[in-house]
Amino acid sequence: MKSKELASYIDLYRGSLLNDVIPFWVEHSLDKEFGGYFTCLDRKGDVFDTDKFMWLQGRQVWMFSSLYDKVEKRQEWLDIAVHGAEFLIEHGRDAEGNWYFSLDRQGKPLMQPYNIFSDCFAALGFSALYKVKPEEVYADIARSTFENILKRRGNPKGKYNKVFPGSRPLKNFSLPMILCNLSLEMEHLLDKEVANTLVQEVVHEVMEVFYQPDTGLIMENVYPDGNVSDSFEGRVVNPGHILEAMWFIMDQAVRLDDQALISRTVEVAMRALDYGWDKQLGGILYFKDVKGFPPQQLEWDQKLWWVHIEALVCLLKGYQHTGDERCWEWFQRVHEYTWTRFPDPGYGEWFGYLNRQGEPLLSLKGGKWKGCFHVPRGLYQCWKALEAIAEKHESLTLQEK
Amino acid sequence: MKSKELASYIDLYRGSLLNDVIPFWVEHSLDKEFGGYFTCLDRKGDVFDTDKFMWLQGRQVWMFSSLYDKVEKRQEWLDIAVHGAEFLIEHGRDAEGNWYFSLDRQGKPLMQPYNIFSDCFAALGFSALYKVKPEEVYADIARSTFENILKRRGNPKGKYNKVFPGSRPLKNFSLPMILCNLSLEMEHLLDKEVANTLVQEVVHEVMEVFYQPDTGLIMENVYPDGNVSDSFEGRVVNPGHILEAMWFIMDQAVRLDDQALISRTVEVAMRALDYGWDKQLGGILYFKDVKGFPPQQLEWDQKLWWVHIEALVCLLKGYQHTGDERCWEWFQRVHEYTWTRFPDPGYGEWFGYLNRQGEPLLSLKGGKWKGCFHVPRGLYQCWKALEAIAEKHESLTLQEK
Repeated sequence: MKSKELASYIDLYRGSLLNDVIPFWVEHSLDKEFGGYFTCLDRKGDVFDTDKFMWLQGRQVWMFSSLYDKVEKRQEWLDIAVHGAEFLIEHGRDAEGNWYFSLDRQGKPLMQPYNIFSDCFAALGFSALYKVKPEEVYADIARSTFENILKRRGNPKGKYNKVFPGSRPLKNFSLPMILCNLSLEMEHLLDKEVANTLVQEVVHEVMEVFYQPDTGLIMENVYPDGNVSDSFEGRVVNPGHILEAMWFIMDQAVRLDDQALISRTVEVAMRALDYGWDKQLGGILYFKDVKGFPPQQLEWDQKLWWVHIEALVCLLKGYQHTGDERCWEWFQRVHEYTWTRFPDPGYGEWFGYLNRQGEPLLSLKGGKWKGCFHVPRGLYQCWKALEAIAEKHESLTLQEK
Repeated sequence: MKSKELASYIDLYRGSLLNDVIPFWVEHSLDKEFGGYFTCLDRKGDVFDTDKFMWLQGRQVWMFSSLYDKVEKRQEWLDIAVHGAEFLIEHGRDAEGNWYFSLDRQGKPLMQPYNIFSDCFAALGFSALYKVKPEEVYADIARSTFENILKRRGNPKGKYNKVFPGSRPLKNFSLPMILCNLSLEMEHLLDKEVANTLVQEVVHEVMEVFYQPDTGLIMENVYPDGNVSDSFEGRVVNPGHILEAMWFIMDQAVRLDDQALISRTVEVAMRALDYGWDKQLGGILYFKDVKGFPPQQLEWDQKLWWVHIEALVCLLKGYQHTGDERCWEWFQRVHEYTWTRFPDPGYGEWFGYLNRQGEPLLSLKGGKWKGCFHVPRGLYQCWKALEAIAEKHESLTLQEK
């Protein structure tokens, strides 16, 4: 690997973030009339639906707060974060402080707070905003939302849970995975002891309970004791989820200075890629059934933006922290697949959904699930990991001289 | 069109039903140990999951009862219907008589009765069984389930409804559509007045409220007054659903001897086909957004078994009742697409899910949503419509001589 090669990767990830992706959302996503963000943007960036989904509102507050925090103190970025936060404060919660799933353009609730990830991303957004604009109201919302998440954790869907009590009490991988990231992101707001205990708990959940030694994979749903359920929900594997979780855990492991844990995350990531890679047509498959049976997800063979950018983040962090050449090789392969297919040279930003063949399945740049989050967060994370790799590489080169 | 051509179509539809599809289910779907039916069958017919989904249990009871009723008095078919019914009687309902969504192999409830279509297909199954085996318990279950459906009609999802009250009160097309079919299927059990009023009501719902004169399409979800909602749910069109509904309405129109209504259903079917046909790769698309925006359904471009067989039924009935040559032309086109792609020459029965290119997306013959229903029902309906067309054709030919 040459310094020049690294420099050109850095240019690409940094340049795409700052000159393509962020400008796209700055230009197209602000609802200047009613507040909050539009996320349903067609190929050109035109708004095709005005509903406001809480996941994506909270995530965009987080994204612009983080850019202001970590990239540059641009007033425009801070203003955009505050713009979303104000809408959320005014309209986002029910009387008990639960976050709705969606609102209409004006802020009237559409979908009840059945989905705990709305709360997770609201907490994420407000805690990041507090970091760059330390108003107590932001901290209060982040903290109380976080407490509410912990309270609801045992039955995240509450009364909307359709599982017959006690019949097949599977728990889902997403919540511990997100709590792993959230507890790190909210470190400045949480009691240290509480945070540490939680981190230990979720790392254990992910790496011991959801992880299955016999397959080397992490399951989406397991029994409370970690056993696999031989059912549609129990057999499903989401390779992109595993890869995203592995860099969350890696971040924790770096903070804990736990090299053994870092190595384990790399091993799991290698396994997830090997398992999830489409040997026929390239790219990472969305879902697979661990026993090789037909998965119930009809979209199982599609190639999704977040899966690929999260894989890239995971691989670069893995390489940064371990120097494992397999990470670099996989990075190059996933990079090549991703950059020749997802970015839209015509109108900027990335296509979200490709079919198995790697062609756009939907022309949208944003929708109900894709907003200003995975692509810019991932570009930022890759850029920073590449810089760290380049620095290490340079100091090694200097030593050799 | 020649008599020979018709005869060979009849042979194909009749032969496939009796020598391929039904034997496949007879051989592979019976759970002789715990009762009920397996529906998760892989390409070869081997069971890959043992959960029991109420939609498919009820539908299979209906299918075998109907075969016994209409095709031949084979004891085996009646036994299979009773086999499923007994399992349903023993395990299928909660204390209030609502039908669970799914049970495990042994019959223990897995998913709560949040889905009113479980009840619809149970009523369908028991009323058909009562026709061929007139035990009062079957009639009672069919009737009380039907009454319960009517009671729950205003809020079919009950407490599992996640829509914020009053925010965007859309109603869904599926229920009136199925009630249209169910009221005809249950004619022998229902009070005539009740049935007639209901039929008028649901035909009105489908053809006036859900139907949109400006586009000529029937929407999946509309406001109570029939207005279209400019939202993901409001913009979605399911062409296969329209085609299936049109033959349900056609059956009612024949019963009512309403030639004008028959003609209208044919016009709507023509429009749905023209709109839903994949001009690029052939076949009928699963979902489209009426404004041409990206639909939220990631499976929008897939080609589904039930869509194609229901289209064939609709087209043959349309031709049978109107002689409209457009129906015959479309029939030939959909027939050609369907028969070269869905049936599995290797192991029998039909693939359920093809990708946009027309290749199997999943290798299963049955799963959570595909059971012993659309394919055999459709083959039977096509066979009978073709026979009626052939008879008419023969008498015309005789007259000409």
